[in-house]
Amino acid sequence: MSSFTSQDHISINAIRALAADVVGKANSGHPGAPMGMAPVSHVLFSRFFNANPKNSKWYNRDRFVLSNGHACALQYILLHLLGYKLSMDDLKAFRQLDSLTPGHPEAGHTDGIEVTTGPLGQGFANGVGLGIAQAHLAALYNKPGFDLVNNYTYVFHGDGCLMEGVASEAASIAGHLQLGNLIYIYDDNHISIDGDTNVAFTENTEQRFLAYGWQVLKVADGDNDLEGIANAIAEARKETSKPSIICLRTTIGYGSKQQGTHGVHGSPLKADDITNLKTKFGLPADQSFYVPQEVYDIYKGIGTRGAEKEKAWDALLASYGEKFPKEHSELTRRIAGKLPAGWQDVLPIYKPSDAAQASRKLSEIVLTALTPAIPDMVVGSADLTGSNLTRVKGVEDFQPASTGLGSYKGTYLRYGVREHGMGAIANGLHAYGGIVPIVATFLNFVSYAAGAVRLSALSGHQVIWVATHDSIGLGEDGPTHQPIETGVHLRAIPNLDFWRPADGNETSAAYKVALESTRTPSVFSLSRQNLPNLENSTIEHASKGGYVVHEEQGEDLTIVSSGSEVSIALEAAQKLIAQGIKTRVVSLPCWSVFDAQPEEYRLSVLRSGAPILSVEALSTVGWAKYSHEQFGLLGWGASGPYKKVYEKFGITGDNIAAIGKKTVDFYKKKGGEVISPLIRAF
Amino acid sequence: MSSFTSQDHISINAIRALAADVVGKANSGHPGAPMGMAPVSHVLFSRFFNANPKNSKWYNRDRFVLSNGHACALQYILLHLLGYKLSMDDLKAFRQLDSLTPGHPEAGHTDGIEVTTGPLGQGFANGVGLGIAQAHLAALYNKPGFDLVNNYTYVFHGDGCLMEGVASEAASIAGHLQLGNLIYIYDDNHISIDGDTNVAFTENTEQRFLAYGWQVLKVADGDNDLEGIANAIAEARKETSKPSIICLRTTIGYGSKQQGTHGVHGSPLKADDITNLKTKFGLPADQSFYVPQEVYDIYKGIGTRGAEKEKAWDALLASYGEKFPKEHSELTRRIAGKLPAGWQDVLPIYKPSDAAQASRKLSEIVLTALTPAIPDMVVGSADLTGSNLTRVKGVEDFQPASTGLGSYKGTYLRYGVREHGMGAIANGLHAYGGIVPIVATFLNFVSYAAGAVRLSALSGHQVIWVATHDSIGLGEDGPTHQPIETGVHLRAIPNLDFWRPADGNETSAAYKVALESTRTPSVFSLSRQNLPNLENSTIEHASKGGYVVHEEQGEDLTIVSSGSEVSIALEAAQKLIAQGIKTRVVSLPCWSVFDAQPEEYRLSVLRSGAPILSVEALSTVGWAKYSHEQFGLLGWGASGPYKKVYEKFGITGDNIAAIGKKTVDFYKKKGGEVISPLIRAF
Ligand SMILES: [Ca+2]
Ligand SMILES: [Ca+2]
Repeated sequence: MSSFTSQDHISINAIRALAADVVGKANSGHPGAPMGMAPVSHVLFSRFFNANPKNSKWYNRDRFVLSNGHACALQYILLHLLGYKLSMDDLKAFRQLDSLTPGHPEAGHTDGIEVTTGPLGQGFANGVGLGIAQAHLAALYNKPGFDLVNNYTYVFHGDGCLMEGVASEAASIAGHLQLGNLIYIYDDNHISIDGDTNVAFTENTEQRFLAYGWQVLKVADGDNDLEGIANAIAEARKETSKPSIICLRTTIGYGSKQQGTHGVHGSPLKADDITNLKTKFGLPADQSFYVPQEVYDIYKGIGTRGAEKEKAWDALLASYGEKFPKEHSELTRRIAGKLPAGWQDVLPIYKPSDAAQASRKLSEIVLTALTPAIPDMVVGSADLTGSNLTRVKGVEDFQPASTGLGSYKGTYLRYGVREHGMGAIANGLHAYGGIVPIVATFLNFVSYAAGAVRLSALSGHQVIWVATHDSIGLGEDGPTHQPIETGVHLRAIPNLDFWRPADGNETSAAYKVALESTRTPSVFSLSRQNLPNLENSTIEHASKGGYVVHEEQGEDLTIVSSGSEVSIALEAAQKLIAQGIKTRVVSLPCWSVFDAQPEEYRLSVLRSGAPILSVEALSTVGWAKYSHEQFGLLGWGASGPYKKVYEKFGITGDNIAAIGKKTVDFYKKKGGEVISPLIRAF
Repeated sequence: MSSFTSQDHISINAIRALAADVVGKANSGHPGAPMGMAPVSHVLFSRFFNANPKNSKWYNRDRFVLSNGHACALQYILLHLLGYKLSMDDLKAFRQLDSLTPGHPEAGHTDGIEVTTGPLGQGFANGVGLGIAQAHLAALYNKPGFDLVNNYTYVFHGDGCLMEGVASEAASIAGHLQLGNLIYIYDDNHISIDGDTNVAFTENTEQRFLAYGWQVLKVADGDNDLEGIANAIAEARKETSKPSIICLRTTIGYGSKQQGTHGVHGSPLKADDITNLKTKFGLPADQSFYVPQEVYDIYKGIGTRGAEKEKAWDALLASYGEKFPKEHSELTRRIAGKLPAGWQDVLPIYKPSDAAQASRKLSEIVLTALTPAIPDMVVGSADLTGSNLTRVKGVEDFQPASTGLGSYKGTYLRYGVREHGMGAIANGLHAYGGIVPIVATFLNFVSYAAGAVRLSALSGHQVIWVATHDSIGLGEDGPTHQPIETGVHLRAIPNLDFWRPADGNETSAAYKVALESTRTPSVFSLSRQNLPNLENSTIEHASKGGYVVHEEQGEDLTIVSSGSEVSIALEAAQKLIAQGIKTRVVSLPCWSVFDAQPEEYRLSVLRSGAPILSVEALSTVGWAKYSHEQFGLLGWGASGPYKKVYEKFGITGDNIAAIGKKTVDFYKKKGGEVISPLIRAF
C-alpha cells in the first residue's frame, strides 16, 4: 500500500486535537472514540474512500456509516476537512440548538450523513441494507465495461454495537448473502460505559464473525500502524464474496492523560489535558480549533480526487445511456427517486359486491399489481412469507447465485426471523436510493423492531411495513401474538403513517399514499380474517385518512372505527337505525393522514351535533382525540377461534349497538350541545 | 446411560400421535415440532428431569422452557402425561376460548408453565434469567452438605429463536457468566416458515456458540438415537462452568407423509396422514387421543420419582433450618415471595425545601436505602450504570469468581449493551422466584426491549425498569435519544405501571407501589435534570397515581402534568394566579394506578367545573382521556442544552401560562358546564 509520511501523522493528530476541542467547547459529548479512530479515519478517507464532498448525493459514492454515532465529533470533523457543507463555525456549535452538528448524526439534517446513528447497532444494520442495495442495483444495471454501481460501504462501530441483537441479526444475514461490498471496522478499544468490556463482553468476536461467514482481519496497533490499517482495508476490498470485519485494536482517547479508560468515553477532557495533548502532538497548545494548513490541503486534495471520480462516472453513465438507453432511463429515474409514471392506475378497485377478503390478501393483490409497475420495490418478510402474503408470483429471491436459490437481481428478501435487523436493513436500503423497501411480519412483532422504526420516521426513510395478523382477529395464536398497544405506539411516532384499512379500496389507498410519501415510513395493519367491501369506500376517500362510510343527517350518534371493526360498526349502526337511532359511521384508517386534511374537511367527518363513539379491537388509548367515548380492549386478548374471541370482548354488532345506545342516552341526559372533539382551544 | 427399551419408543410414538390429534382437533396449531421433539422430550423427562407434577411450584425443580412456544401441543401433552393439572379434556380444548391450553404457553395460566413463550427468542433469554437466579440463590444459601438450590434449566428452541437478536444477546451474556446450569436443546430441523433454513440461516451455529463460550454437543439422529440424546444431556450436566447447547438433528413432523417439510410446521395433518402415522407407529388407527396404559404408567412413575425428590428436599430444608436458622428464614421468605417486613420505613421522604435533584438521582437514593433492607433486589444496567445511577455503594457484581470481578453472590448485573436480552432475562429472574429484578437503560431504549416488556406484563413478572433520560430534558444527545412515543406506548400496555415521578416523594412512591405490586412490571421514567420538591407531594398522595399539587377553590383552570413538567406547570399556575386566573395543578405520575382509585377520588382530582389542560414534554397522544386540552411535543425533540430545548418547544412557565389563558378563554366563550373528562357514558 501507499506509504505514509509525517503529513499523515500530522493530519491524524490534528483530528484528535480538534475532537477534544469540539467536545470541550460544547462541554458535552464523546471525545474518546474520535481520538481513537482518527488514524483509521484518515487512512480510509485519504487512501480509499470515493466520494465527492461537493455533491454528497453522487450515486456511486462509497457509503460511510458511523454506527457508534456518539463519536460524531469525528464524523463532523472529517466532513469539514473534506469540504462538505460544514464550517468551522458549525463545529464550534456542536450539540447546540438548531446547529448542523447535533449530538448524534442525523441523515437529512447534515450534508454527508448517510444514516442516522447513535442508538447502538442501528448503523451496523443500516450498512447491510446499503450493501444489499449496491449488490442489487449492480446486478440489475451494470454491464460489461460499465461497472456503474460498484461502491463499498464502510461501517465504523464499537463493542456496543456488537453487543446489540440488531447487529447480530444483520451480521448473520449479511454473511448468508455473501455481501463482499461491506467493510466493517470494529473499534476494539476494550472500553464501554460500564468500564472495561471484560465486565460483560468476553465472547470471541473473531470466531463469531467467522461463524457468520465473514472475513475477519485484525490490526493489532490501530493507534499507529497506518500501513497495517491500509493493508487490512485493501485485503477487505479484495474479498468480494464475504463481508469483512477489521478488528482494530485502539486506545480510546489516545493522547489524553486518561487514555484507555472509560473516563474519556462520554465526558469532555479537562482543559489542561487538552493543552497537554496538543503539546504532545506538536500542535500549538494555546490555539483551539486549529487545523494546520497542510491538513486542509491534504483533505482538499482528497476532495478533488473525489470530484474527478464523479466526473469520470458521469461520462461513463452518459456513454451507458447511448448503449443501453432503456436501462439508463430506468436507472436515472431510480436515482432521482421518482417512481415510474402511471403506477397508480394499476391499483385494484373494488365494489361493495366483491367478495370479502382478508386485508393481508388484499395487500397481496396490490403487490401483485404493482410488482410489474414498480421495479423499485424490494419486498421481504421475517420468515412469515406465507402468512404475510408478500411474495407474489414471478418474483425471484435476492440470493447469492452460488446458493442456487436466486440472484442479486431478485427483489424478494428472505430476512429470516430477524424483525429488528429487517427494519434497520430496510432503512439502509432506502438510504441508498432507488429502492422502496417493503418489509413484513405480524403487527405484534413490529415491536421487536421499534428501535429501527422510530429511526425510519426520524430520518424520513420510506419503509413500508406489511404488518398482518393485526388484532385478536388472528384468533388461536392467542394473546402472545395479539397486539393491543402496538397501534397507539406507532400512531404516536411523528412522521409515521399507521394505516388500518377496512377493505379493498382502503388497502389500495394505503399503498397509494405510502408510495407517494417519499420521506415517510408507513405501517399497514392488516387482518388475517376476511373483511367485506364497504359502500362508500373509494381510494380517493380513504386517501384522506378518514371519511364517512355511512351518512345520516341529524344523527344521534357517529361511530368511528378502523380496519376489521368498521364492518362491525356498520352492523351496529344498522341495528341502531332499526331502533330509530340515526347512526353515522366513519372509517379512520390513518390518523396522521387525516390530521393533515383541511380543518373544514375534518370537521365534516367528525362533526359536532351528536356524540362520537370509537370502536377498535385494540387499546382505546389515543382515541379520545377523535371521539367522546371509546370502546375497545382494556386488557389482553385470548386464544380461540376469532369470532368467539370477538364475542368474548363484546366487539359484535349487537354489543356495539348496545354501547351506542348507552352513549346516546348519556349525552341526551347530559343535555347541551355536543361539540366535535376536533375543536380545540389552541 | 440407562438403556432404552421398546417402552420408550412406544411412549415417543404415543406423544407424536397425540400431538397430531391435538392439533388436528383444534384444526389449528403446529404439529411438526412436537412430533420432531418427542424423542428428546421423553428422554429428558423420563431420565433426567426433577420436578413434582403434584406441586409445580417446588422451588428446586428443574425448569423447562419451550422457547419455540408454537410447539406447545408437545408441552401440554407432557404436562398431562406427567400428572400436572391438565386433563385429556384440556388437550381436546387446545386453542379454544378460555381453555387451559391456549395457542402459546402462558405462565400463570396453565399449571407447570414456567414462562410465556411464542414470540421467538424470549424463552431462550428467559432461560438465562432462570440460570442466573439459580446460580445466585445457590451462592447465597447453599452450604456444605446442603445443596439446596441446584436445579438445571432446560430450554428447547428452534432455528427461529437462534435468528432473533434477543437470543444472541442472552447467549453472549450467558457465556460470559459461565452458567453451567443451562442446557439448551436446539431442534435443528432445517425448516422454518419460509421453507428450508438455507434461504436465510446458513451461519455456523456450532462455531457461534463456541465463540460465546458455550459447550456445544451434537446428536446426529434426534429422531431415533435415544442413547445419543441421553449421553449428550448427561455430558451437558457434567459441564458446570459453561452453558451447553445440544444441536439435535431432527425431522420436523416425523412420521407424517410430509415429514421434513414446512408443510407440517403450522398446519394440522390431514386425516389420512394421521391414520397412516398411527398405523406406522403401531397405534390403533381408529382411535383419537389414545394413550396406551403403559405410557401413563411410565409417566406416573416419573411423577412419583419427582414427588420423592421433593420430599427428600423438604427434609433437607428442615434440617438446614436447624443448622442455619437465619438463612433458612430468609430463603423460605424469598421462596414465599414476601419482602422483608418494614422495608417501606426506609423510603426517603422529602420536604419542599430540600434541594432539587434529578429523579434518576432520587432513584439512586431510594436504591441506596432499600439495598440493605431488601436482599431480593438484583439490579443491573445495559451498560449505562453511571448514567442510570443504579449501582449503589457496597454492592458486588454478579460475576463468575474466575473473572476476579465479583461472585455469584453479587446482586449487580452488568448486562452489556443488550436491552432486549436484559428485559427477557429479567422475566426469567422473576419467574424463578425469590428475586425482584431491577433493570436500567435510557427510556428511549426500553423500546429495544418492547418484546420482553409486553411479556412481563402479560405474564405478571414484577420487573422494574429504571428508565432515565426520559425526555428532551436529556438535552444534547438529541432526538435520537429523546423519547416522544415511549410513554404512551408503555401506558397502553395492560398490567404495566408507567411512573413519571415529579420529585423525591413521588420517586419513593413509585418504588413503594412497584415493590408491592408482585404481579405487575413497572417502568420508572426518570429525568436527567434536577427537579424541585413539591408542596403537596407525599408518598401517600403519589401512591394514588395522581393528586392535587396545588389546590384552588372555584378554579378557572386545572393543569395536569407529570414528571419534570409538574414544576413548570406550577410556575405557569403562579403566573396565571397573578393575572387573576385561579389555576389548580394536578400531578399524575401513573395513569394505571390512578385509574384503579375509587371514582370519587378520581373525580375530586380531575373534577368538573373548569377546563383541564395537560402538559408533558412527550407526545400528547392519550392525554385526552384525562384532560380537555393537551400541550406537548408534536414532533421530534432537538439537540442542545436542555433549557434551550424546552424553550424551543414552548414548555416554559410563560408559554404554558399563555396556553392556559387561551384554554380558559376558549371555554368561557364556548359557555355551558365543563364536565370532567373522567365522566363517561359506559
Ligand atoms: Ca468501546
Ligand atoms: Ca425449525
